[in-house]
Amino acid sequence: MLESEQVRVDARHGKLTGPTAGLAYGYVQANLVILPAEDAMDFLVFCQRNPKPCPLLGVSTPGQKGIPNLGENLDIATDIPRYRVWKGGELVEECADVTGYWRDDLVSFAIGCSFSFEEALLEQGLELRHISQGCNVPMYRTNVPTHAAGKFHGPLVVSMRPFKPADAIRAIQITSRFPDVHGSPVHIGDPGLIGIKDILKPEYGDPVQINDGEMPVFWACGVTPQSVLMASKPKFCITHAPGHMLVTDLKNAQLAVL
Amino acid sequence: MLESEQVRVDARHGKLTGPTAGLAYGYVQANLVILPAEDAMDFLVFCQRNPKPCPLLGVSTPGQKGIPNLGENLDIATDIPRYRVWKGGELVEECADVTGYWRDDLVSFAIGCSFSFEEALLEQGLELRHISQGCNVPMYRTNVPTHAAGKFHGPLVVSMRPFKPADAIRAIQITSRFPDVHGSPVHIGDPGLIGIKDILKPEYGDPVQINDGEMPVFWACGVTPQSVLMASKPKFCITHAPGHMLVTDLKNAQLAVL
Repeated sequence: MLESEQVRVDARHGKLTGPTAGLAYGYVQANLVILPAEDAMDFLVFCQRNPKPCPLLGVSTPGQKGIPNLGENLDIATDIPRYRVWKGGELVEECADVTGYWRDDLVSFAIGCSFSFEEALLEQGLELRHISQGCNVPMYRTNVPTHAAGKFHGPLVVSMRPFKPADAIRAIQITSRFPDVHGSPVHIGDPGLIGIKDILKPEYGDPVQINDGEMPVFWACGVTPQSVLMASKPKFCITHAPGHMLVTDLKNAQLAVL
Repeated sequence: MLESEQVRVDARHGKLTGPTAGLAYGYVQANLVILPAEDAMDFLVFCQRNPKPCPLLGVSTPGQKGIPNLGENLDIATDIPRYRVWKGGELVEECADVTGYWRDDLVSFAIGCSFSFEEALLEQGLELRHISQGCNVPMYRTNVPTHAAGKFHGPLVVSMRPFKPADAIRAIQITSRFPDVHGSPVHIGDPGLIGIKDILKPEYGDPVQINDGEMPVFWACGVTPQSVLMASKPKFCITHAPGHMLVTDLKNAQLAVL
């Protein structure tokens, strides 16, 4: 059994209930959004219009519990270690299985996550400050609007990693190879130019140190679709719990376009 | 006849004596260095060790007046519109033909030039400030040492083009495709980090305006080998006169690695 499949099967049988960071090294992990068909079309268009924050790795048809190409042995209602269930934008439950919530009109979206490009950055010898500091990557709400689709609209959320300029250039090159997992940065340098007032006060995650001679580098972040979703208060929605991702059978290296 | 070949033939017959910028659009133009064999080996090693400032497009064997792959109808002693002849590091003559100086031990080096990647940047819709301002690109001596080889050593010289951050990211992507013409930038942001004291006082070329919200982006520059050469005062050397380049039959698009 593939390591990735083992993670899903362990989650399915309640043997794994914790975060997926570091599990099944080399395999693509994804953000999960599940929406009723009535909202799914708008959300699909939103993703299509905003590929940098919402790179779609796979979408199910209504009611389908698998997502083609992400893994054969995959049950989207059981294989994530921890889910969040939302009604009208309010969190109503965190649970390890959403079979009880399943409906024939639910559509599942697997959205690329920065874990994939972070693996490539680390393998090239770059330091990721939030990993060195043992905390979450800092994320910020910007003043850059996304392209709206139906009820879905809102500002771009970005993650930030500090680098020396030569490493920033290298990081741009490396992440440009991975358009399906946020791709190249959306901004470098002065945080104020994208509406970030205080780099030490991220809206999500944890602050990290920026050393002398380093510059902040900003990537579109998978928190964007979640933030946009919650603001639009859909009647019903299921997501993964933060850090408890869908582990797919795709390899990160397969996502490289060059 | 190819447009590039026409430029060389015109230079050969004295019909063209001015700069080559804008001539034979789409064709690769190159910096020229001609050295006696006794210095050529060290210089070849210097170029090999410093590919970003000294990307070699072609080298002749001693005495050979052609350079394979750069053009069939090519006489390196006549086909550049204007030459500079140096003895012991001193400029002794500027002339349109160096046939009278030719020796059987001379080796010619064609070194990539930023014209090639500038064409790609312009075609992608990026503004090049020095072109908008109708002046030369600003160039700076840095405190970054090159990798020495024999008598050849000295600091890296860089060219600078200002961009908004998103355009800087795009410029890094585009120029990364052109390693044979300086490739990706060597630095972005704070000029002081590479020893540039005053961005408005370039050592070569002209200062350009950097607008609010823009950042300077620095590329390794083909002036580096010339600066290194002159400092080492070889007994004899021929170069092109600034702006009067070797026009080759290579197309810029052919140099893209991706």
